[in-house]
Amino acid sequence: MPADQPAFQDVLLPAEKSICWICGHSNPHGLQIKSYWDGEEAICNWDPQPHFTAYPNVMNGGIIASLIDCHCINTAMMTGYQAEEREPGSEPHIVYVTGELKVRYLQATPMDAPVTLRARVTTVDGRKTSVGCSLYSQGEECARGDVLAVRVEL
Amino acid sequence: MPADQPAFQDVLLPAEKSICWICGHSNPHGLQIKSYWDGEEAICNWDPQPHFTAYPNVMNGGIIASLIDCHCINTAMMTGYQAEEREPGSEPHIVYVTGELKVRYLQATPMDAPVTLRARVTTVDGRKTSVGCSLYSQGEECARGDVLAVRVEL
Repeated sequence: MPADQPAFQDVLLPAEKSICWICGHSNPHGLQIKSYWDGEEAICNWDPQPHFTAYPNVMNGGIIASLIDCHCINTAMMTGYQAEEREPGSEPHIVYVTGELKVRYLQATPMDAPVTLRARVTTVDGRKTSVGCSLYSQGEECARGDVLAVRVEL
Repeated sequence: MPADQPAFQDVLLPAEKSICWICGHSNPHGLQIKSYWDGEEAICNWDPQPHFTAYPNVMNGGIIASLIDCHCINTAMMTGYQAEEREPGSEPHIVYVTGELKVRYLQATPMDAPVTLRARVTTVDGRKTSVGCSLYSQGEECARGDVLAVRVEL
């Protein structure tokens, strides 16, 4: 991954709040995904553990939805700091939650290869940020998601 | 849970295919959720393990999406057998996958109480079955989902 930047998840929230099952660096039972900027897109690579199946050699759709959701929320939070020209993770913390999540499953995602997620902010409207995201396996788009992220106080 | 009926997941698929991370009875690392008929609705109760957090005492949205997805897909499969007046799990197996998943998060779902999902088939159109589902915590609706289930050969 990009050597010149920390992962979003490693700077956005302090340890006591970074407990998200998908991305929290303080959740020892979580997936601890890492997201990075790649130009205007946010990228995340993830290698599935063998139990995250739906059917034989088909990745679970719930995990796909979870990855898209969390990668997009982190992207919305980073974008929030950019808009305020503040250092990510500086206080007061910028926190977003998911208002709505939509995922279209375009084709089966195999289990025997890592996946790559690419997310991009589409609109920012006050407390609401919309983020689109595609999930790829071996260069093929397998799922496409939209997340409506809503800023909250935590 | 209802004592007079087996769980959907215990009859729909044989062991070698029942490997879904959310509901497969052959997945030792999975959640192994169980769904039952309650009149025309399908019901599922689930007690979250403490690591499925988003923020402190807030359930992870990815897990919520995963539960809704899987409970609805099982409901679509059971409905498929009903339509063909066949015993659930009889061959040839009826298998559905998710074409589209949409979840609206209405309020934070607490971690310190079990959740109840209630799903209902809304339309059946050839290979496509639409299922709506609400997730409740202590009687409060916390999330509402729609799943487009698509019948496939496995």
